[in-house]
Amino acid sequence: MATDSEKQCSEYSPGRIAVCGGGSWATAIAKILLSSQDSINWYMRRQDQIDEFLRLSKNPSYLTGLKFETDRINFTSKINEVVKNSDTLIFATPSPFLKMHLKKLRQSLKTKTVVTAIKGIVPDENLIVTDYFQQFLSVPKDNLVVLAGPCHAEEVALERLSYLTIACSNREKARKLACVFTNNYIKTSTTDDVTGIEYASVLKNVYSIAAGICHGLKYGDNFQAVLISNAIQEMQRFCNAVHPLHRSIDESAYLGDLLVTAYSKFSRNRTFGTMIGKGYSVKTAQLEMEMIAEGYYGTKCIKEINECYHVKMPIMEFVYNVLYNRASPILQVRALTELIR
Amino acid sequence: MATDSEKQCSEYSPGRIAVCGGGSWATAIAKILLSSQDSINWYMRRQDQIDEFLRLSKNPSYLTGLKFETDRINFTSKINEVVKNSDTLIFATPSPFLKMHLKKLRQSLKTKTVVTAIKGIVPDENLIVTDYFQQFLSVPKDNLVVLAGPCHAEEVALERLSYLTIACSNREKARKLACVFTNNYIKTSTTDDVTGIEYASVLKNVYSIAAGICHGLKYGDNFQAVLISNAIQEMQRFCNAVHPLHRSIDESAYLGDLLVTAYSKFSRNRTFGTMIGKGYSVKTAQLEMEMIAEGYYGTKCIKEINECYHVKMPIMEFVYNVLYNRASPILQVRALTELIR
Repeated sequence: MATDSEKQCSEYSPGRIAVCGGGSWATAIAKILLSSQDSINWYMRRQDQIDEFLRLSKNPSYLTGLKFETDRINFTSKINEVVKNSDTLIFATPSPFLKMHLKKLRQSLKTKTVVTAIKGIVPDENLIVTDYFQQFLSVPKDNLVVLAGPCHAEEVALERLSYLTIACSNREKARKLACVFTNNYIKTSTTDDVTGIEYASVLKNVYSIAAGICHGLKYGDNFQAVLISNAIQEMQRFCNAVHPLHRSIDESAYLGDLLVTAYSKFSRNRTFGTMIGKGYSVKTAQLEMEMIAEGYYGTKCIKEINECYHVKMPIMEFVYNVLYNRASPILQVRALTELIR
Repeated sequence: MATDSEKQCSEYSPGRIAVCGGGSWATAIAKILLSSQDSINWYMRRQDQIDEFLRLSKNPSYLTGLKFETDRINFTSKINEVVKNSDTLIFATPSPFLKMHLKKLRQSLKTKTVVTAIKGIVPDENLIVTDYFQQFLSVPKDNLVVLAGPCHAEEVALERLSYLTIACSNREKARKLACVFTNNYIKTSTTDDVTGIEYASVLKNVYSIAAGICHGLKYGDNFQAVLISNAIQEMQRFCNAVHPLHRSIDESAYLGDLLVTAYSKFSRNRTFGTMIGKGYSVKTAQLEMEMIAEGYYGTKCIKEINECYHVKMPIMEFVYNVLYNRASPILQVRALTELIR
């Protein structure tokens, strides 16, 4: 990965940039963009959410402490309009809803730069998001970009120093796009490991659910450290099998992203797992939480993808058994403790 | 690393085992030992601490919630007596005090198994503890064992599932000793990377101070994840330079030990760093804390050792500058943020 200098940043015009999505991560990205761009386009599916945003000058549901200058934002609830009016589209919707957003799409994405800030897998097709855009929407590989953490939206809102990783097979494009996201509280790196970064983003949610379940069952910090150490090894095995490449899994975009999710109080996946560990049913835990725990869907997708690869993944299997086979969390963790070290 | 089966455990007699030290980790180790041994020897320097222990049936100063059957413990405040009466000696004193304990030693250690549970470097000599025992007390290499985490004493006291790693150049001895520590809440692994595990144990304290300083300066979880990702890479570079060996730095004894220390509320090194980040002077922070923050000494030792190796260690350098050069934590962290990614 390469850190990007301020110098490179001065030359690049990214065209018109759009944020697609209305959640906390989309809102944080919009905030970051507005520090380098005069104005942005912003697509949200629900017009009533846009109306409220304009009335309050803030997202009515997420990062509600964050005021926006709404005269610098062109809102739309029409996906075709935002695509038509933008050169770079940043998708930050929960992965289970992506297809629903795109099904109304009549505009071509072929000439657009598509950035995915989605940390999940497209259900049914079981594809990471860049593969989905490439195969189903004919976006050329070099136009596909992944925006990765470690980065919780809540800390971006507070302007706490955070690092983003921009992945693209075209490294020059990655470097130029990185400039758009760089400011006094965001530092950026670039990589060409698009696929590895995307799978890592999916897996870290699975492992955060695992961490939550164990926490809910009162396993302590000593055990969590062993769990996370084994999780990063499992992530490396999986990424190497699915997309062989020389990568250092301890870099921030992989290990850092796992740590921020598995250890942070902001993580919805960890919270979801904790509820299950405390005895909530999967259904009840889902109903209680107002945000989507992407790892729930990610677990099933990785499980199915791994049927082709047969990577040894005891932690993913543990989460899968608890979430989808109604297996007892207590007994499943006990079995897991014999498989990790 | 190999997980150890129950089967192997039934055959081994470790001889008479002694704990040397009176702190929380020594107390936790004594508790673990008493679940596999009928009785143990226990050396504490101060007779008044022993008297209080006997009167209260618990350590008067550490893990005070833990009751002991004192009729199963042979206490002594005489180092020569404990060495004479023991076959296996487990040292769990703070590293800066080790030489003080040993200076009265008249008994030979040559035929003893010496286990170090000390996470630090012997000052002045700048040696890891096993090298010190080998060079200054003529303990044969195959008789030297390292007991490593990830394991906070406080969670052992609560019998929360924890994993220990036993390192010895003689793998058979490591496996047999592992049995002594295995019980229903402790699982064990073995390795022959004695030197790497010891340096990792020292470095994790340095990095925990770094994590604490940044926390004290209000850097958030996003940044901590980047810091720790860079720390584990720095640890790998240092261990590979000082003791080249094929090791997976993401195993529990390295990464896990770093995580449990850097993220846990129990970590005295992190607390020490936090105080400095909040504006305490190094001296005041040391006086305020009743326990030794080993990383303070470890930082200086690693800095000096690295003068021979020239490993790129921006995080260690940052901590060193703050602790020993009276450098401003704010400015030092700001410089560090440009060096990591």
